Amino acid sequence: MFYIIGLGLSDEKDVTLRGLEAIKNSTRVYLEAYTSILMIQKERLEAFYGKELILADRDMVETESDEILHNAANEDVSLLVVGDPFGATTHTDIILRARALKIPTRVVHNASIMNAVGACGLQLYGFGQTVSLVFFTETWKPDSFYDRIKENADLGLHTLVLLDIKVKEQSEENLARGRKIYEPPRYMSIPTAVSQLVEIESLRATGILDPNRTLAIALSRVGGGDDNQRIVAGTLAELLAHPADAFGEPLHSLVIVGKRLHHLEVDYAEDFAINRETWRVVARDVYGCSLD
Amino acid sequence: MFYIIGLGLSDEKDVTLRGLEAIKNSTRVYLEAYTSILMIQKERLEAFYGKELILADRDMVETESDEILHNAANEDVSLLVVGDPFGATTHTDIILRARALKIPTRVVHNASIMNAVGACGLQLYGFGQTVSLVFFTETWKPDSFYDRIKENADLGLHTLVLLDIKVKEQSEENLARGRKIYEPPRYMSIPTAVSQLVEIESLRATGILDPNRTLAIALSRVGGGDDNQRIVAGTLAELLAHPADAFGEPLHSLVIVGKRLHHLEVDYAEDFAINRETWRVVARDVYGCSLD
Repeated sequence: MFYIIGLGLSDEKDVTLRGLEAIKNSTRVYLEAYTSILMIQKERLEAFYGKELILADRDMVETESDEILHNAANEDVSLLVVGDPFGATTHTDIILRARALKIPTRVVHNASIMNAVGACGLQLYGFGQTVSLVFFTETWKPDSFYDRIKENADLGLHTLVLLDIKVKEQSEENLARGRKIYEPPRYMSIPTAVSQLVEIESLRATGILDPNRTLAIALSRVGGGDDNQRIVAGTLAELLAHPADAFGEPLHSLVIVGKRLHHLEVDYAEDFAINRETWRVVARDVYGCSLD
Repeated sequence: MFYIIGLGLSDEKDVTLRGLEAIKNSTRVYLEAYTSILMIQKERLEAFYGKELILADRDMVETESDEILHNAANEDVSLLVVGDPFGATTHTDIILRARALKIPTRVVHNASIMNAVGACGLQLYGFGQTVSLVFFTETWKPDSFYDRIKENADLGLHTLVLLDIKVKEQSEENLARGRKIYEPPRYMSIPTAVSQLVEIESLRATGILDPNRTLAIALSRVGGGDDNQRIVAGTLAELLAHPADAFGEPLHSLVIVGKRLHHLEVDYAEDFAINRETWRVVARDVYGCSLD
């Protein structure tokens, strides 16, 4: 059996009992290298499971899947991924390959940011499509996310914005010289994300991301408990002016609040507001929420 | 500490280690009665946890939350819910109440249909807003879901349709006589859901739910393993004509496929198709997918 096991969002205790059982019974256990974004280290997982983990980077999962799937028809093999196996990064390729090889497959689901985002207090029903935001460079500023956010905004829907992660990047020099030396991983922070959103708003000027009239909620380390999880709500302008370290450790995600905002959502998220008064005033005057 | 713990989608092994630890340490453990939709019985959970569970119906969670929260500042109390605590049914009310009482709260996330729907092979990025479909009666056929699906469809997005569950319903006679006798729970099945969609399509006639030109994917018991989980793909007409028992046990959910369909999504879900040829032909000719 080939298992793809979601590890959830926070640490080694977020695995499900079903997942842990499969890991313990597996002869080989791969850990997707994106898992460096888990809040814990490989060594800690290994100690917890009492198993050696084989690191599998994204390339390996996509192009060398036969190695991972080797003999999985006759023994149990597990691939561990952060969040849910069908989260932002899907694993349909390797499942298709397993099917072609007639290897039975089981997916062990878990929480991912796609559903745990509900922790910010906005109803999941009110979200439109999810978008990704990549790091801008001097010469490359892809802005199709703006059209997607606008599609959601025009319907009054919230948007979950997933922020870029760069792992296994090479510097231009190392790339040119063919040296497989990689830069340390980079995670987009809330201030960077908001500044990129506002930069594109200043070009497009439709008003959907007006810094003083748009509410947003920043999330970091959802599921990590009060000691670790941070949720910060405010206008885009407030988030931009907020101290960068107040958003906590990566990973960060951002929600752009849509106009179908309900007063209970306002009440719930007010607890996370940088400034409770601004939060309520914008919700009432710009979003048209009926508040006491 | 007050814990709200997601149990995941399938059985007792879907709880996370963090969740199980909290349950074991709690002096009182409530099980939300909607949990009758979990695939397992209360007694089986009790045996597994070695704990007595107190059933809490939706009314109790919403209006008698002080009883649940009693003394939770000084001892651990857990409320167990199916899926994730911020799934289709949110638990923001009781968390707001806990905050007001200065009771520390921790949410233990888990998979819910809102992210596990990815198991059908459609990318979560391609989903718009989620809608709910309630049981029609002779005189009451609320159809606002149609507008929501159309908003998604106009953007080419998929729609997750959550199907109605009726628990603690009273017959008209029992209601009239004030007898608190409840009907057995009812779960909307895929054939009922599709027939309701098609009924409204015949009135609205915009074509977004044309039975022969709309692809959909039915899911039941996601996460339940191959022995239990069923995924069935086809046109709405095919789903309607398919034997009702082929969709498996409740709960059922339905995905209406949007036009931003990718050929890899078609390939993946083809394995679930009632008729592979129809599936590909409609994807190619109606959805405009480039297929080999």
